[in-house]
Amino acid sequence: MADDCDADRYYHVDGDLVPADEATVSVDDRGFRYGDAAFETLRVYGGTPLAWDSHLERLESTCEALSLEHGLSADDLRGRIDDVLDANALADAYVRLSITRGVQPGKLTPRPDVDPTVVIYAKPLPRGGLEGASVWDRHATVRTVETRRTPDEAIPAAAKTHNYLNGILARTELRSDDGTVAADEALMCDCEGNVAEGATSNLFFVRDGTLYTPTTDGPVLPGITRELVLESARADDIPLETGRYDIEAVRGADEAFLTNRTWELRPIATLDGEAVGDGPITNRLSRLYDERVERVCY
Amino acid sequence: MADDCDADRYYHVDGDLVPADEATVSVDDRGFRYGDAAFETLRVYGGTPLAWDSHLERLESTCEALSLEHGLSADDLRGRIDDVLDANALADAYVRLSITRGVQPGKLTPRPDVDPTVVIYAKPLPRGGLEGASVWDRHATVRTVETRRTPDEAIPAAAKTHNYLNGILARTELRSDDGTVAADEALMCDCEGNVAEGATSNLFFVRDGTLYTPTTDGPVLPGITRELVLESARADDIPLETGRYDIEAVRGADEAFLTNRTWELRPIATLDGEAVGDGPITNRLSRLYDERVERVCY
Repeated sequence: MADDCDADRYYHVDGDLVPADEATVSVDDRGFRYGDAAFETLRVYGGTPLAWDSHLERLESTCEALSLEHGLSADDLRGRIDDVLDANALADAYVRLSITRGVQPGKLTPRPDVDPTVVIYAKPLPRGGLEGASVWDRHATVRTVETRRTPDEAIPAAAKTHNYLNGILARTELRSDDGTVAADEALMCDCEGNVAEGATSNLFFVRDGTLYTPTTDGPVLPGITRELVLESARADDIPLETGRYDIEAVRGADEAFLTNRTWELRPIATLDGEAVGDGPITNRLSRLYDERVERVCY
Repeated sequence: MADDCDADRYYHVDGDLVPADEATVSVDDRGFRYGDAAFETLRVYGGTPLAWDSHLERLESTCEALSLEHGLSADDLRGRIDDVLDANALADAYVRLSITRGVQPGKLTPRPDVDPTVVIYAKPLPRGGLEGASVWDRHATVRTVETRRTPDEAIPAAAKTHNYLNGILARTELRSDDGTVAADEALMCDCEGNVAEGATSNLFFVRDGTLYTPTTDGPVLPGITRELVLESARADDIPLETGRYDIEAVRGADEAFLTNRTWELRPIATLDGEAVGDGPITNRLSRLYDERVERVCY
């Protein structure tokens, strides 16, 4: 079986802790039918989810974009996360929390009255912070792909939803005919040709001592790790710019890295086969991130 | 309960006929996690799905766009549809057939080796053809919305997938604060401002005796009803043009209608509150469609 569905793991589904093989949703659930659902991926260090308030805020912003009034309190959601961590005896973990619009009568048009389906899944991840090991075992290889990031006018990029085919199509471009995958991450541009983000990560790069990252004014997910890195850079007086950049700006960078909850900061070894790598700013920001985890969670 | 999940209805899920309340999928299924699934909606008249070969062809084209090699034969899929129709004693029906990429190890990047999940759902629809009644009880009210149709570069419009939030966001724009819905269909433009399609329908309009419909070179689903209407128009020597049109071209039309499997041809009563209506070409094409249903299915 898949590592993601070990039979002895417990999920939290629709209010109950259930073993993995009973963790199901109705095929009529709008989460299944249409991907009509919001989600968050969290990282838990020593039993404490990092930046829980930021996750809650983004979850609410996703639900607002979807006009999905789930009616669940922050305490309720947090309680369910704690329950699933306890049930699986996890302190250092990856957690995915999904809220769907549930089953509704009729077809596509959503009804305002929502009986949401809440699904929480947790699996072990190594200890983080200064003493922890990275989830990744080497710097990332990255390739640009033809798939363009869905524009905000079609689906707001700030909404983190179960409509994830855009990223899947990007990742699929990395696959060779023999099934091998040519890179760790697929970097997408927006429809205007500006660099946007990876399928599951935000991009940073460094040129001449300045840290750059694509602006969330474009179709770029406001990643929570991205935000923490920006905070650290500001606090540490690292020169910083957000804007719209073409791929050549990244190709000629002195340093580059990706961020997401799982990877934290992951330096880019190569972009389209050309070496980039880490450097003093990437390493400094990684250390600041680890220190934050240590300070806040352990 | 919802009309779509009557407890005494049978679904076909992953190879088995099951009662509605047991029709579930794993929360680890990629169809649920990411909307990573292809689907078709069919209409069955007198036990015969209309244009089955066209549905099969589009399903394959969707799966090709998703690099989803499900390995199921046409006969197998048709057999499951027949089984679910028999189990529910249905001759005139709406059928939805979904194929997901199933449960896979790892996260976003899909693996080539697929154990698909097949879900088939059927519900009664009135008899069609010359003797049948329309599913709709009045001509459609249509409003243009701000949401833009997802461009092909992000997700190919020809792929009919469980990533349906673009249409849901469009439909949500029709909803007032009190929950009432201001129109039957939301008409989307593409990112360049050309009229594309409704959330679940293709658009046709008539000016000065010529039938127009947006080209599938833009982000427009190649609807099967759309294709049958085009065939009928060609066979009947109705002047025909496909292209890119702005909304003003539709607003000033002599006739306009929407097409999809369920509605068949549904005339547009009003577009953004302005009267449009049916007329000789709409009515002729509706009759030709009913005659085809009668000829092919009964």
